[in-house]
Amino acid sequence: VIDGPALWLDLMETAKFGGTPKGGICRLALSEEDAKVRAWFAKTCEALGCTVTYDSMGNQFARRPGSNNDLPPIMIGSHLDTQPTGGKFDGILGVLGGVSVLRALHTAGLTTVHPIEVVNWTNEEGARFTPPMLASGVFGGVFTQDYAKGRADKNGITLGQALEEIGFVGQEPCGQHPASAYFELHIEQGPVLEAEHKTIGIVTGVQAMRWYTVTVTGQDAHAGTTPMTMRSDALWAAARMIDGVHHIAMAHGPDGLGTVGIVNCQPGSSNVIPGQVQFTVDLRHPADDVLEGMEKKFYETLSHIATSCETQVSIEPTWVSAAVHFDSFCLSCVESSTEKLGYSSRKIVSGAGHDAVYVAKVVPTAMIFVPCWKGISHNEAESAEQPDTTAGANVLLHAVLQADAQ
Amino acid sequence: VIDGPALWLDLMETAKFGGTPKGGICRLALSEEDAKVRAWFAKTCEALGCTVTYDSMGNQFARRPGSNNDLPPIMIGSHLDTQPTGGKFDGILGVLGGVSVLRALHTAGLTTVHPIEVVNWTNEEGARFTPPMLASGVFGGVFTQDYAKGRADKNGITLGQALEEIGFVGQEPCGQHPASAYFELHIEQGPVLEAEHKTIGIVTGVQAMRWYTVTVTGQDAHAGTTPMTMRSDALWAAARMIDGVHHIAMAHGPDGLGTVGIVNCQPGSSNVIPGQVQFTVDLRHPADDVLEGMEKKFYETLSHIATSCETQVSIEPTWVSAAVHFDSFCLSCVESSTEKLGYSSRKIVSGAGHDAVYVAKVVPTAMIFVPCWKGISHNEAESAEQPDTTAGANVLLHAVLQADAQ
Ligand SMILES: NC(=O)NCCC(=O)O
Ligand SMILES: NC(=O)NCCC(=O)O
Repeated sequence: VIDGPALWLDLMETAKFGGTPKGGICRLALSEEDAKVRAWFAKTCEALGCTVTYDSMGNQFARRPGSNNDLPPIMIGSHLDTQPTGGKFDGILGVLGGVSVLRALHTAGLTTVHPIEVVNWTNEEGARFTPPMLASGVFGGVFTQDYAKGRADKNGITLGQALEEIGFVGQEPCGQHPASAYFELHIEQGPVLEAEHKTIGIVTGVQAMRWYTVTVTGQDAHAGTTPMTMRSDALWAAARMIDGVHHIAMAHGPDGLGTVGIVNCQPGSSNVIPGQVQFTVDLRHPADDVLEGMEKKFYETLSHIATSCETQVSIEPTWVSAAVHFDSFCLSCVESSTEKLGYSSRKIVSGAGHDAVYVAKVVPTAMIFVPCWKGISHNEAESAEQPDTTAGANVLLHAVLQADAQ
Repeated sequence: VIDGPALWLDLMETAKFGGTPKGGICRLALSEEDAKVRAWFAKTCEALGCTVTYDSMGNQFARRPGSNNDLPPIMIGSHLDTQPTGGKFDGILGVLGGVSVLRALHTAGLTTVHPIEVVNWTNEEGARFTPPMLASGVFGGVFTQDYAKGRADKNGITLGQALEEIGFVGQEPCGQHPASAYFELHIEQGPVLEAEHKTIGIVTGVQAMRWYTVTVTGQDAHAGTTPMTMRSDALWAAARMIDGVHHIAMAHGPDGLGTVGIVNCQPGSSNVIPGQVQFTVDLRHPADDVLEGMEKKFYETLSHIATSCETQVSIEPTWVSAAVHFDSFCLSCVESSTEKLGYSSRKIVSGAGHDAVYVAKVVPTAMIFVPCWKGISHNEAESAEQPDTTAGANVLLHAVLQADAQ
């Protein structure tokens, strides 16, 4: 059985690496803070009898031997990087929940048949290096390693350079690591479980998502001398486009989502009409075909607004992630463990992308959700309750044991 | 008579200090590039027999003695700082036009009755330190020196610190410099003179302008798990407000203007709904009372949008500049010189603020405009023609001589 308080202590202790005054975490992928939490993870797992290795993308594997080490391991994992104003649970619970499974096995002196591995995937958030889930994406064969290592942050530093710099990188080519099953525990990051008073979400799949970078080009001009009717104002056009993205999502409700998270406006002076604006767009829907329709409407709307504002627009798709349906055997392990342990539960589709999306391409996979406060995530106020994190880790433990018994 | 080609050479030579690949200038106030052009200006004026002094705001005065040096000088001036993507003429023509007047007097061996001074005002653009016309504003008694020196750039460096660093600062308290008249030559920065094929604009005044910084507060949340109807999206609200500013200006057309030039969006991650957005607003109209009405509508509109988007808004007024009407004697000097020299002309109200706005508070003042290409300004493509710059400087010379004869 899981030592819930020990798991909670681990969550609070690692929250110091990049901890913010408002109680959140700023621990961007491959930053100094990320290096610190990686070192902590390695040391903690070694103390629980594990060997820690790295692949060429910096993914970190803590391996506890089984009785038959020729069998591919059962993997547990998630990520330890955070958003710039992230919380203490997103991703972290999945990795430290894995550590709590290792601790339970260690304390019980139990040897599984398969080796058990806990994985910390590099750059899940996509906050420093776009797109999200980059290293699990290379693992799942969705991105080439060259593509992933070439992704640059806003200062022009590539993921490959940042990885060399912090030094947590191994010889094993990413993707050549065998596994027989993968389980990921995560906070829901949405409001459903809390609202329905359910402890466990049995995650049947993940919605489809697409990202774009939009560039609007107008003409820099003087704010005091250029008549309204003679302007080519890239920011006015962008503002109408951002409103347009909102309306497209609303028109595909209640499940359609549309978000603009980053805006850059040039040259950036109070009395200069902006000549160029760039912004990101994130569109999501559980159904691939509906998302396809949203995308079509999005292209039409932006092109129409650009023309009516006397500006030009170009749209670069930066990420496509199709809807995912998890493995039925892994789901049955989660479902029957939840039942056996007597937790309330419901089936749920994930709104957020997770490393499990890409790992599922090559390994039978399932996910477990626990509630989080008001569904708030990607926010320093992100919060979860100790009984729920304990429950989630217990389901994780028993799902792993059930998969091991197969 | 003005040596037009020499003036043009000066314009091209100083354009090297901060020159951009696209043929513009990036010479922010009190930057290293600003220091270089200040040194050039001092050296050039000294070679024409002037003494160069500085006041406590770093305003630079090149003085050519008259026959009666007890009389307050006739001043000519403008600014040598530029926008981040500025052109080669905005402000610069007024200072170098002044130098061309000094050169004409020097070559002719002519001694005026009053001393003649050419002034380079510090931080006119307001691009590095907000608001614009800061140092002429202290000169005109509109801002206190403490306020002006405490204004910080986006890196937190204050104008006072930047001034100490580049070192062009004198003992004389800013504002205690007497003057009997002030003339400023400038490109129109708008399309009227070119469209009407007029060489000279006799600038009767300057329109009213107000600046604001708007902060919209929502809540950071996950782009993939937060339903559209549960969001408090600061950027969606800001986008609707930016569109609102546009519509307020249009509703007060054709003279009303509304511009958003700077936007900052926090935390700035593709999959995080922005929790806070800040943007600047610039509203203008030739009539003070109409601008007052635009401001009222602006407050109402933003408050209404904030509420309907489930966000909060706060509006900080950062600058108010009332409509200005120039001195009738100075205007008559410009008008009769234009006539005498045989240039086509029209009366015009300036859409842009100028140092003359604040100097006019304490010294009889007038301005002279010349056409610029397509009215484009605050843009690297800003351009003017040599015959027009020469004509403007000739009107400047004769207006000064006429004021001197009084
Ligand atoms: N779990 C999570 O927040 N992942 C980031 C990818 C996404 O935006 O869904
Ligand atoms: N001339 C000029 O561009 N001045 C800057 C102040 C303004 O925005 O009008």
